[in-house]
Amino acid sequence: MHTNSAPSAFWAKARARAAALDAADPLAAMRGLFHLPEGLIYLDGNSLGPAPKAVIAEVEAATRDEWAEGLIRSWNTAGWFDLPVIYGDRLAPLIGADPGEVVVCDTVSVNIAKALHAALNLRPDRPVIVTEGAGFHTDRYIAEGVAATRPGVRLVLEGRDAPGIEELIGAETAVVLVNHVDDRTGAIRDMGALTAAAHAAGALVIWDLCHSVGAMPVELNAAGADLAVGCTYKYLNGGPGAPAFVFCAGRHLADISQPLSGWWGHAAPFAFEPGYRADPGIRKFLCGTQPILSLRALSPALDIFERVDMGQLRAKSMALTALFIELAETACGPLGITLASPREAGRRGSQVALGFGHAYPVMQALIAADVIGDFRAPDILRFGFAPLYIGFGETCRAAETLHRILATGRWREERFQARHAVT
Amino acid sequence: MHTNSAPSAFWAKARARAAALDAADPLAAMRGLFHLPEGLIYLDGNSLGPAPKAVIAEVEAATRDEWAEGLIRSWNTAGWFDLPVIYGDRLAPLIGADPGEVVVCDTVSVNIAKALHAALNLRPDRPVIVTEGAGFHTDRYIAEGVAATRPGVRLVLEGRDAPGIEELIGAETAVVLVNHVDDRTGAIRDMGALTAAAHAAGALVIWDLCHSVGAMPVELNAAGADLAVGCTYKYLNGGPGAPAFVFCAGRHLADISQPLSGWWGHAAPFAFEPGYRADPGIRKFLCGTQPILSLRALSPALDIFERVDMGQLRAKSMALTALFIELAETACGPLGITLASPREAGRRGSQVALGFGHAYPVMQALIAADVIGDFRAPDILRFGFAPLYIGFGETCRAAETLHRILATGRWREERFQARHAVT
Repeated sequence: MHTNSAPSAFWAKARARAAALDAADPLAAMRGLFHLPEGLIYLDGNSLGPAPKAVIAEVEAATRDEWAEGLIRSWNTAGWFDLPVIYGDRLAPLIGADPGEVVVCDTVSVNIAKALHAALNLRPDRPVIVTEGAGFHTDRYIAEGVAATRPGVRLVLEGRDAPGIEELIGAETAVVLVNHVDDRTGAIRDMGALTAAAHAAGALVIWDLCHSVGAMPVELNAAGADLAVGCTYKYLNGGPGAPAFVFCAGRHLADISQPLSGWWGHAAPFAFEPGYRADPGIRKFLCGTQPILSLRALSPALDIFERVDMGQLRAKSMALTALFIELAETACGPLGITLASPREAGRRGSQVALGFGHAYPVMQALIAADVIGDFRAPDILRFGFAPLYIGFGETCRAAETLHRILATGRWREERFQARHAVT
Repeated sequence: MHTNSAPSAFWAKARARAAALDAADPLAAMRGLFHLPEGLIYLDGNSLGPAPKAVIAEVEAATRDEWAEGLIRSWNTAGWFDLPVIYGDRLAPLIGADPGEVVVCDTVSVNIAKALHAALNLRPDRPVIVTEGAGFHTDRYIAEGVAATRPGVRLVLEGRDAPGIEELIGAETAVVLVNHVDDRTGAIRDMGALTAAAHAAGALVIWDLCHSVGAMPVELNAAGADLAVGCTYKYLNGGPGAPAFVFCAGRHLADISQPLSGWWGHAAPFAFEPGYRADPGIRKFLCGTQPILSLRALSPALDIFERVDMGQLRAKSMALTALFIELAETACGPLGITLASPREAGRRGSQVALGFGHAYPVMQALIAADVIGDFRAPDILRFGFAPLYIGFGETCRAAETLHRILATGRWREERFQARHAVT
């Protein structure tokens, strides 16, 4: 910090600048729609988004009026049976999909398995799944399980088999499974370019949107995407473990199949036919009975997004992360903090990763100071800036808190060293 | 009915008998723990159990205190991360399993897929899955999907390839997938005998407990069972689409594997290791992030079962179904009703299926008269008698209502004819 001798002046100036940005923020009113604990700076909405205030009443209605009073009748009277496609259609505009191309169900992991099998079924003569060696762990784990189930199918990994994923895509590639935004660094992959490269080689692409959906515009159909999956409990704020989603481009729906062929994916789910006959549309990606209470919690979250201009959201997201990077680098760079996210805002999702040799105890000290981010082994401090409810003032205070913890060496305290399970 | 000329006397006598049975019912007080709409006779708890009264507060606490206030911290502070195994251990006594053999997660359909793949992985040289041609539809559909994914694996069906499942089990059989209680007729399969027969042939068995768990004692380990799945929203009253469960016998855990290898099944789920390494215990059947609100709704239901003597429950279940069969046959037999469930109480689950040529409009008329059962194509009226909250008095009134609808021909009314989706 140039102002090392006068840090309080530096932060006073930063705070004034942040206050001006907050005053001009067209999305500022959205924060009031969420329950955010007093005094907490919550920069972990990329792991679990906060509760929309309306969700308490929504879940109570689902429990009391629909389950307790309506009982089995609610499958019809409360429309439970259509929720996966209704919510899918409501989610579609957020990912550049059309109605009938998205269904909300199951978990990201299970949906990745469906999508991988579906892609392999469309490319039966191609034995290779290309994916990221360092992508989100569950994607690779599921790809391993799929490959182990299908004789001859093998994984080729970016980072292990070649530095860049494009170099790995060839005549043997059936499908490429990639994250739109890297869960650690926040780096964005170019959806249009990678999809085009895969298609040129005759391969399909599955986009994992977990770290982009709800934080930036996503344009699946404009990119010519084939399949996508994503979660609803991060930037979408659908609640802990809220059901995930699957996208399948309309042009593939007639021919595609997936082997988790449960009753809800059947063309006539209540006819109890002896054999499986897949629904001709997106419902073929459904499988078993969905958790209705958790599913219903997603509705108020989707209500909120219907009021959001995603261009404004993206502009604020870039401004928030740029401010945090500038303050953190200026103040904490001399104390050993490095930037682990792309510097160029256009290549960065709605999160900032900072490198530090003792990232774990530093994050524990931040959490103890009511700034919640998370730690990624071995040396990453990760901060999510969900532009729907995070302001510039708290972004500035988060950087100031980080600086104080590093400058005072408070992270060295014994209580911040012990590892325990973190998510 | 012998008393056709004096039906009111017949029903008066039946009601008095039922009242005496209710007065002597040791489980009568359990009904007060559930929310049951006034005036409704709910004989569909085998599709969706009613809400325990305590669930409203439990779900609100999970939403408000854990999600909204606790945010990401609740994975540790509210113990979310261990819920699948904690609830599994609480459920274990209900199915004759030991701690560490049961995990609550995903859907029945997805768990059947895991169990089938796991069994096939343990018997790699055997290509046959034996299952029921007329069993619960999702079981067979999922088995089709598994077989289609694994070259050489094929389905052999009871009812199509031989009348009895035992005749189909042979040297090529890897696994037998069967329902403990048939979802339509309520017929119980002999768990010990079928498991022994399968083991004698070198095959494994997967028991689907959807229609037995919570309605009768189930003794998986006493029967030497290998794998089981079941749902928690029928007789267990866990809520609409509440997560299902998987049982794996402890002796198989070290060697068994399943391909839905998501992050939560990893031995070190927060270590973000590059490759999948399955948890050595029952957690290897976990996959993706579970729907926490729906999961938490299961807890009050399990609390209730901790207070129940399953022997008493079974005795009451047999008495309820016997009373209903006696009254329905006596009063409605002359009007065309036939018994489609086993007559012997020991071979019957906690439900009664009655055959009638116009079962659909009759069930619609029953529902309009506040007696809720369900219809199974083509000609089955199905009534579930969950002994936790169903009494003898309402069992008698249900039979009386059925008689009145048949005797008056009310089911012929136009409004009861039109088909719509039923579950």
